[in-house]
Amino acid sequence: MKTMEAIYNRRSIRKFTAQKIKDEDIKTLLRAAMMAPTAVNAQEWEFLVIREKEKLSEITKIHPHSQMLKQADAAIIICANMEKEIIPGYWIGDCGACAQNILLAATELGLGSVWLGVQPDKKRVEDFRKLFKLPKHIMPFNVIALGYPAEKRDEKDRYDDKKVHLEHW
Amino acid sequence: MKTMEAIYNRRSIRKFTAQKIKDEDIKTLLRAAMMAPTAVNAQEWEFLVIREKEKLSEITKIHPHSQMLKQADAAIIICANMEKEIIPGYWIGDCGACAQNILLAATELGLGSVWLGVQPDKKRVEDFRKLFKLPKHIMPFNVIALGYPAEKRDEKDRYDDKKVHLEHW
Repeated sequence: MKTMEAIYNRRSIRKFTAQKIKDEDIKTLLRAAMMAPTAVNAQEWEFLVIREKEKLSEITKIHPHSQMLKQADAAIIICANMEKEIIPGYWIGDCGACAQNILLAATELGLGSVWLGVQPDKKRVEDFRKLFKLPKHIMPFNVIALGYPAEKRDEKDRYDDKKVHLEHW
Repeated sequence: MKTMEAIYNRRSIRKFTAQKIKDEDIKTLLRAAMMAPTAVNAQEWEFLVIREKEKLSEITKIHPHSQMLKQADAAIIICANMEKEIIPGYWIGDCGACAQNILLAATELGLGSVWLGVQPDKKRVEDFRKLFKLPKHIMPFNVIALGYPAEKRDEKDRYDDKKVHLEHW
């Protein structure tokens, strides 16, 4: 699949079939994640991969918009290792770019995915910390739910000329 | 180019040839940007596209790591429209995902690119606001320098098993 096609076809998918994702495909997603750029090459992300049904269900108790995890075959929780932060605050944009690589790689692999926000919601951050016993320096950024899609959402061109400013505002 | 190939091949490029980027290719990058996911579909990004040589040079006076803009054929400044913020703070990760779409689309088009951080550096944000007369509710996030590459940087597999935690930390 061409890059632009993956960019256009990626949609938030919240319904999944029972089909299992191969371990090697999860590894491809993680490899894609680690190819994302980071400010000053800090590579401050780390990844918590959840495949056990019970644990996926536990997340639905602490995240209000995560009910699709009961159907999902996997979740990747992107975390930032704050001990590796070099320039304050850049880790958030870095994690966003990293998440996008996972979503696009998933699209290419025929997987459906949806990004569930965690940080900067303080309660959610604390709840994830508790549930997964994350060390103090590990900040959960988001959760990406993954599975083979059981819904089809058409691509939708969101290009909007009004959001483009040439040379000046 | 396959998505995974673009993800692997994308490197920060800081040397550019004099070749001009077609307007339609800039539009493709902006379309890719606007296909990125945003929390609660806020689509809070806006884009300032700079092609005038003089303006590109002016940025080098307010951004310490932007000297390549003197060679670049274009820059896209990703901004967030804070009036469109729905859930506080999610715009930063959204802008990161949006930036990554631009970098990957650029890679597919044969363009070189590099992400230059602006937010949350307060002085830099203010300097960009002044230089481009940005309204109060417009927050500059980053600058993406663009041009045809005059340097080749090999892909480098950054996959690191130590950053992957299965089921628990």
